[in-house]
Amino acid sequence: MTDNPWFQWKGDRLQVIDQTRLPLEVHLLELTTATETVDAIARLAVRGAPTIGAVGGYGVVLGLLEDFPVDLQQARQRLDDVVDYIGSARPTAIALRVAVEGVRRAASAASSTAEMLDLAVKAAGDFVQQDRASCDAMAANGVELLRGTRRFLTHCNTGRVATTGRGTALAVLYALHDTGDALEVLASESRPLLQGSRLTAWELREAGIDVRVIADGAGAAALSAGLVDAVIVGADRIAMNGDTANKIGTFAHAIAAKRFGVPFYVAAPINTFDANTATGADIEIELRDASELFRVGGVTVGDVETGAWNPAFDVTPADLITAFITDRGVLHPPFLDSIRKAIVSEQSKAPDA
Amino acid sequence: MTDNPWFQWKGDRLQVIDQTRLPLEVHLLELTTATETVDAIARLAVRGAPTIGAVGGYGVVLGLLEDFPVDLQQARQRLDDVVDYIGSARPTAIALRVAVEGVRRAASAASSTAEMLDLAVKAAGDFVQQDRASCDAMAANGVELLRGTRRFLTHCNTGRVATTGRGTALAVLYALHDTGDALEVLASESRPLLQGSRLTAWELREAGIDVRVIADGAGAAALSAGLVDAVIVGADRIAMNGDTANKIGTFAHAIAAKRFGVPFYVAAPINTFDANTATGADIEIELRDASELFRVGGVTVGDVETGAWNPAFDVTPADLITAFITDRGVLHPPFLDSIRKAIVSEQSKAPDA
Repeated sequence: MTDNPWFQWKGDRLQVIDQTRLPLEVHLLELTTATETVDAIARLAVRGAPTIGAVGGYGVVLGLLEDFPVDLQQARQRLDDVVDYIGSARPTAIALRVAVEGVRRAASAASSTAEMLDLAVKAAGDFVQQDRASCDAMAANGVELLRGTRRFLTHCNTGRVATTGRGTALAVLYALHDTGDALEVLASESRPLLQGSRLTAWELREAGIDVRVIADGAGAAALSAGLVDAVIVGADRIAMNGDTANKIGTFAHAIAAKRFGVPFYVAAPINTFDANTATGADIEIELRDASELFRVGGVTVGDVETGAWNPAFDVTPADLITAFITDRGVLHPPFLDSIRKAIVSEQSKAPDA
Repeated sequence: MTDNPWFQWKGDRLQVIDQTRLPLEVHLLELTTATETVDAIARLAVRGAPTIGAVGGYGVVLGLLEDFPVDLQQARQRLDDVVDYIGSARPTAIALRVAVEGVRRAASAASSTAEMLDLAVKAAGDFVQQDRASCDAMAANGVELLRGTRRFLTHCNTGRVATTGRGTALAVLYALHDTGDALEVLASESRPLLQGSRLTAWELREAGIDVRVIADGAGAAALSAGLVDAVIVGADRIAMNGDTANKIGTFAHAIAAKRFGVPFYVAAPINTFDANTATGADIEIELRDASELFRVGGVTVGDVETGAWNPAFDVTPADLITAFITDRGVLHPPFLDSIRKAIVSEQSKAPDA
């Protein structure tokens, strides 16, 4: 299972890389409380749906540790409070809810407070182990689908900092690179927070993959110029019909890819599909502060008094998506069928879910 | 004729606003030589196709003034050298070539060096007068076409700093605002150089128009959310079939507008149409330095060693354009016909062109 060095549980604290400081500085953050956890998630020091989930799971453990009642009934109340608090740190990514609910479910079964803590730690660890295994499985499934495809456009960051393993979409690229193919990747910078130019470009260069950054608005021009064989992105939540919430800017790339007949792939673990979300219209989209657009790297680049419309995500309709690369195989259209089958098969493997 | 205070010829120097410092600082730049003129154009201290043309025209005058031969034959050589030098400062905008060639044509007819200087100054001034009149004509034609349309998406900057008058696309918005309609404008920030958030947002706010900035990648989401009644942009060069070169990111908005059935308008003076350019494939697109993507407002926001693909413009195919709003009327499809007729009619008005 492919590990990565930037996510480590230390028994009483969680060590994670501070993604806001990359690539200028590799700074490790130590989270010790539920409040610190929520703050790190809210200010995007940790981001990427699987990483948010993994951090959230251990955040519940930290919340229990910092104020742990001796009485089992009170401990259960504390567990519920912490799960609700951390689970609402960001609304769009489904992985966060999957992770904290997993910890709640496991820990609630305890018959003593000591056992509750053990079960919570184990459930948080299970999420990480499953995330790492999922990354490897997506990579393997992606290689099978895309072997020989060399020139990719990707958006935002879906790699080793966005997960606790090799990544989602970037895991596929890492694995294709491992086959010896010389990839050429265009990474759109992903305004406002530049996860593409700051994180993806840094990660890919470190792995020896040829990467060039483009402005988000240059995706259509790159596709038109014939520089892209396939677009591959991650996802924060996927509805049962295949509509996919991902970083703002994804939708525009998908529309352009369709115009030029370039396939558009979404790589995401099966827990990104939300059985409670029928279509994209049901996905709550987080609106973030205008200041993200007017302050870059600590400097003011515009008039912060000007208003902004700053959704963190957009929803790419299923008709623009060629296939989903998941840890449970590649899902092809019609997605209503293939997604339902994959979810049902997943649930039958985990009857206590 | 609507003037603007940021472009003034002072007899021996040209005073222009330094667009790289907006909106944090209103700094006036004084150009006194051809070299300073080319530098200001190249580093985008002056930008916007009409402004580049106007600055280029006076730049030829400055080039003559700084080293003016007494011999007429030598002066003609100097004129040719300066026109070629300034005319190649940026390759895509056709207005620059129109302006400097206009000065060359007028000044070449002189029978003395003193007359050459007079004719050059007059030709440079004529370009500015024509630009200001064009802006007013586009505004009037735009109001006739779009009266009652209230919610716009625009890209880059096409206003009072991009022209010597009221603007191209923004002139239409100013004029619609003058009719008393409460406009709601979304300005995409226009990476890498943020002309949307720095210049358009600043201009529109100053004019009392409600404006919100969005990330370039958020255009599709804004259109999907029903926030936009029409997209309106400017142009740097338009081919005879209607294919339109404009700021990188325009193309993506046009593709998305088409998907949502939202009309997409290009506002540009008739001199933006290039009779020597048959289709978009013939338009040379300027590739700019990678550092524009990695340095923002003087701070480094990524690894500058990473490569980038950084075209300044893209080409929106004519099939995505609803109509052109020009100073000679609104051009509707089929564009091969309407553009040819407008050009022919224009040329018949200026037989010495």
